[in-house]
Amino acid sequence: MPNLKSLLGVEHPLIQAPMAGIQTSAMAVAVSNAGGLGSLPAAMLTPDALKKELHAITAGTSKPYNVNFFCHHPPSPDAAREAAWQQALAPYFAEHGIDPASIQPGPGRAPFSPEICDLIEPFAPPVVSFHFGLPPPELVERVKGWGAKILASATTVDEGLWLQARGVDAVIAQGLEAGGHRGHFLSDDLTRQKGLFALLPQLEQALKVPVIAAGGIADAAGINAARVLGAAAVQIGTAYMLCHEATTSPLHRAALQNPTMARHTALTNLFTGRPARGIVNRLMRELGPLSGAAPEFPLATAAIAPLRAKAEAAGSGDFSPLWSGANARGCKAVGAGELTEELARAFRGFSR
Amino acid sequence: MPNLKSLLGVEHPLIQAPMAGIQTSAMAVAVSNAGGLGSLPAAMLTPDALKKELHAITAGTSKPYNVNFFCHHPPSPDAAREAAWQQALAPYFAEHGIDPASIQPGPGRAPFSPEICDLIEPFAPPVVSFHFGLPPPELVERVKGWGAKILASATTVDEGLWLQARGVDAVIAQGLEAGGHRGHFLSDDLTRQKGLFALLPQLEQALKVPVIAAGGIADAAGINAARVLGAAAVQIGTAYMLCHEATTSPLHRAALQNPTMARHTALTNLFTGRPARGIVNRLMRELGPLSGAAPEFPLATAAIAPLRAKAEAAGSGDFSPLWSGANARGCKAVGAGELTEELARAFRGFSR
Repeated sequence: MPNLKSLLGVEHPLIQAPMAGIQTSAMAVAVSNAGGLGSLPAAMLTPDALKKELHAITAGTSKPYNVNFFCHHPPSPDAAREAAWQQALAPYFAEHGIDPASIQPGPGRAPFSPEICDLIEPFAPPVVSFHFGLPPPELVERVKGWGAKILASATTVDEGLWLQARGVDAVIAQGLEAGGHRGHFLSDDLTRQKGLFALLPQLEQALKVPVIAAGGIADAAGINAARVLGAAAVQIGTAYMLCHEATTSPLHRAALQNPTMARHTALTNLFTGRPARGIVNRLMRELGPLSGAAPEFPLATAAIAPLRAKAEAAGSGDFSPLWSGANARGCKAVGAGELTEELARAFRGFSR
Repeated sequence: MPNLKSLLGVEHPLIQAPMAGIQTSAMAVAVSNAGGLGSLPAAMLTPDALKKELHAITAGTSKPYNVNFFCHHPPSPDAAREAAWQQALAPYFAEHGIDPASIQPGPGRAPFSPEICDLIEPFAPPVVSFHFGLPPPELVERVKGWGAKILASATTVDEGLWLQARGVDAVIAQGLEAGGHRGHFLSDDLTRQKGLFALLPQLEQALKVPVIAAGGIADAAGINAARVLGAAAVQIGTAYMLCHEATTSPLHRAALQNPTMARHTALTNLFTGRPARGIVNRLMRELGPLSGAAPEFPLATAAIAPLRAKAEAAGSGDFSPLWSGANARGCKAVGAGELTEELARAFRGFSR
């Protein structure tokens, strides 16, 4: 198995998971400087913001870093579904005095494109990771052209084989425990999503490229368990969500630190239209975490946004996506560099 | 942490998971004689059959063994739900020429009771494990009275704390990957069920009693990963399903050996009324794996039985519960003693 440290050019085979809306270049810089692979989530950034963040990373570290992009197919708005969605949310609009006619388009999440490729090429990010599949082959080739290593998420063995056949350098095994958006792209059937204990060894056995474990890994024990199961590296997100560099909101931080809340996460499509793991809150409880009425990703976000804004202004997370993996016990309110160094101690004295 | 080997009196901290309908005393004897803890699933046995099986075990081994019981609340038949269930199945009855009026009560699954306690007391089984909670306190005390150690399954931290407060000697952390019936008993909300990578460390942290890891563990790597995550012992089921001693049907064996089929399992309540993990087959695909129409456990079984019998006679598993964990890659068509010895090699040179 290829050595992930040399493939990625890092001191520790530890990737900080890209978390759109939760962190910026500051966290990526701190993690990369500490010897891990810091990640910049680009999915919600405008082109200008992306350029600014890349400048901040290259100014902040000379070490390798990762930029992460989504590869969804942009949705076609569906008037009937929008209407059903607004109807499902109508009692909440009424409760908060929101006029549904005032709803603005939600924050866009643009898939990786030739334009974005043009924008990032001068920076030549050393690692690029993709979620929800891969961009078209010509874009994958362009990214490889500047020497970048390509990572992408698989939630099933079939997805891992698909990614390997299209030339990724390593596959991220995204266990069902992972927080945020599920990366599945070959099937919408959520029963195909597996816990890491089953997914990781099956991917490791089926693939020739190295497998990176993600989902539920919170500490040194989790890192070592993943390595015993065949992981060449680990990707950790939730544990970083309380870090000083995280932009996690105060109410989101409070939820992560409340064991009763944090222990109950679920996959929900209510906040964006795609299933993602978050702490169960009022909206998820009342509508059920998965709704057939939610418009296609990322269109569901628009109608939620004003509810979220009103509730958050009143100190409530009832309508906020409280993203979290199923194991939040590794969260620490320290610097992301310090957390990286602490987690990296797991690699000492463990060889494989 | 107490040593599970001395607590259970076994050479290896490895429990063969009780699998009702899949194995009898023969497997328990083989595993116990090989130094693991063999288990007898008692849930589907009549009193006479249970007595016979206990005689067979005590004749076959002088080593410790486990007897497993269910602790569900016996259901009250619900005519409306029975009617809805028969209606959901009507097209299949028509297809197979089955008269719904001819349906007999299904195989009973009696919860642990004073009568069963009377029956097993003369055998004084050294370990008794419970699924779906615990029997009433006075029965737990009776079982402890003859020196038996008590194990029980937890699928959440709350369930683990509940079991610990009621005196169990160890808690089985049943990860979402596990095959067969989920053991949850405090909440029916399936979003509370977690993959082993998240559940095991959370239970280990929350409890004082030792935690036994179950779900997705298929081989030496899985055993060692579970131990790294804090497990004092492991419980393995699916890997034993192809063993010579297993009564797994030929079509069930074929499904387990077909990677495409075995990779897709789901929780389903169609076969018994309670969620259990099995390989996705026609009935699960067509009705959806979880149906609100299925009568309460174990009443759903009755109406499925004639469909299953007809289909199996024609060589089809379309209506059979093809129980399997989410990681069937450890299945081996060898003797259960040989598999136990092979798995037990994981414990050599690994200390904790």
